[in-house]
Amino acid sequence: MRNVTKDNITDVFAGYMSEDTDPRTKEVLTSLAKHLHDFARETNLTHDEWRKGLEFMEWAGRITSPERNEFVLLSDVMGLSSLVDMIHSVPEATSSSVLGPFHVSNPPPLAIGADMKRHYEGDVLLVEGVVYDTDKKPLAGATLDIWQTAPNGLYSSQDEEQDISSFHALMTTDENGRYAFTTVKPVEYTVPSDGPVGQILDAVGRHPWRPSHLHFITSAKGCKSVVTEVFPDDDPYLDQDTVFGVREDLVMSYERQAAGSFPDGFELSGKVSGEYLRVEFDFVLVKDD
Amino acid sequence: MRNVTKDNITDVFAGYMSEDTDPRTKEVLTSLAKHLHDFARETNLTHDEWRKGLEFMEWAGRITSPERNEFVLLSDVMGLSSLVDMIHSVPEATSSSVLGPFHVSNPPPLAIGADMKRHYEGDVLLVEGVVYDTDKKPLAGATLDIWQTAPNGLYSSQDEEQDISSFHALMTTDENGRYAFTTVKPVEYTVPSDGPVGQILDAVGRHPWRPSHLHFITSAKGCKSVVTEVFPDDDPYLDQDTVFGVREDLVMSYERQAAGSFPDGFELSGKVSGEYLRVEFDFVLVKDD
Repeated sequence: MRNVTKDNITDVFAGYMSEDTDPRTKEVLTSLAKHLHDFARETNLTHDEWRKGLEFMEWAGRITSPERNEFVLLSDVMGLSSLVDMIHSVPEATSSSVLGPFHVSNPPPLAIGADMKRHYEGDVLLVEGVVYDTDKKPLAGATLDIWQTAPNGLYSSQDEEQDISSFHALMTTDENGRYAFTTVKPVEYTVPSDGPVGQILDAVGRHPWRPSHLHFITSAKGCKSVVTEVFPDDDPYLDQDTVFGVREDLVMSYERQAAGSFPDGFELSGKVSGEYLRVEFDFVLVKDD
Repeated sequence: MRNVTKDNITDVFAGYMSEDTDPRTKEVLTSLAKHLHDFARETNLTHDEWRKGLEFMEWAGRITSPERNEFVLLSDVMGLSSLVDMIHSVPEATSSSVLGPFHVSNPPPLAIGADMKRHYEGDVLLVEGVVYDTDKKPLAGATLDIWQTAPNGLYSSQDEEQDISSFHALMTTDENGRYAFTTVKPVEYTVPSDGPVGQILDAVGRHPWRPSHLHFITSAKGCKSVVTEVFPDDDPYLDQDTVFGVREDLVMSYERQAAGSFPDGFELSGKVSGEYLRVEFDFVLVKDD
């Protein structure tokens, strides 16, 4: 096309694709170009702004390493990661929420009732619940891949003081679909803000905080796995999670329990004499197609 | 917002910005988020596609160096670079077209009528014209920063055989606004296609070729500079420039001239006995606001 104009360039872009292009590739790239072009047209994007955007991507590239992915973080703070989660969430099932960059492969198995906090100090939190399918049938043998921050606000992969499997566990539900473990309450933390993403947050007066949460990947044979997080309802950042991860069905009450009431059947039974926290959270998984 | 949904996330994103955010920053980022979200919603972007996009950006980051910028190339092949050029083009003036990554700072001065091709072989091309303002007044003392490929299809910065100022020149117009020089015809070439951008081009059956062109940055006191390119009308890639740089007013006839007709007043006068090519191209610059 020798007469490309600002009004026809989106069609020219689509017209350049060969006829045997995979239809889905064509659909995704055509939509991407259309929205990129509409963004530039609507804002009358200047050369300086365009250059700044490119420099930002270069900076994100330089700062990205096996330990830190600034592009994922950019997707997170722009709301794209959460949006993709929500697009593929099933209304009858537990909502999904951001995986984040801190998940560790091959977490150590944890028996039902065992303790995940090891030697770490802090209020004991007892977490328990049942994994169901959408017919409310408990799912025996479902697995929960669980992870969270240590009391210092760091995940094991960020913290030289922790071994890599610290605050990571893999639990399998019993014949009643039940899981249960103890830990300490996770804490709120900031996403890395010393790079280009931090500069965006600064520019719009946004903080880098996430509300505290427990991460789960819950899976069962014949069901769609759910990657999600559970948030306490008294967290100060609940209404302004910088990565848009909070969903109404993932907000729980972490109830304070009276001293001396700690139940039997736990590794810590008989060892917790004071108050403790308890949260009950059930998962609902949808069946595979 | 604790109940973020796929329908309200764009508003939640805008709502997170503080009230004293710079209005232009707010406008650009809100539009960017809206189009990014609409893109994901319209295509039902899958987690696999989202991950692939992020891996693509990481790869672009790794391959980008001071000598090669894959993000600029991505912007080029997506049509964004050309679109930003066109948005800020002035209809009465010469169209602008992509700067590209091969411009070299501080090009060597070239006198009117001098030869830019040095010892390089090939058909002699005589290029001349006048720089005008939009009142058709010739602009004396206007400067033309000129660059092109050598006959091997490489720019000086890509080619160890050339010194860095090879096929780069800075010319100043005479009292009649005229410029004139000789060179060899530039050749068509491919953009780098061994990285993620090449993978996109492959996926949609697009070639990496650009039609041959002469680059100019034309400037004059009191006028808006224009960054542009001039294309021969017989180039096989004219209708499918992979970076969308061709505009109708930038397409010229490179006319073949009879042997023995080479004019006086050039460094090569009396030295060109055979046929040669000639192109006449006038620039029109708009006055500064």
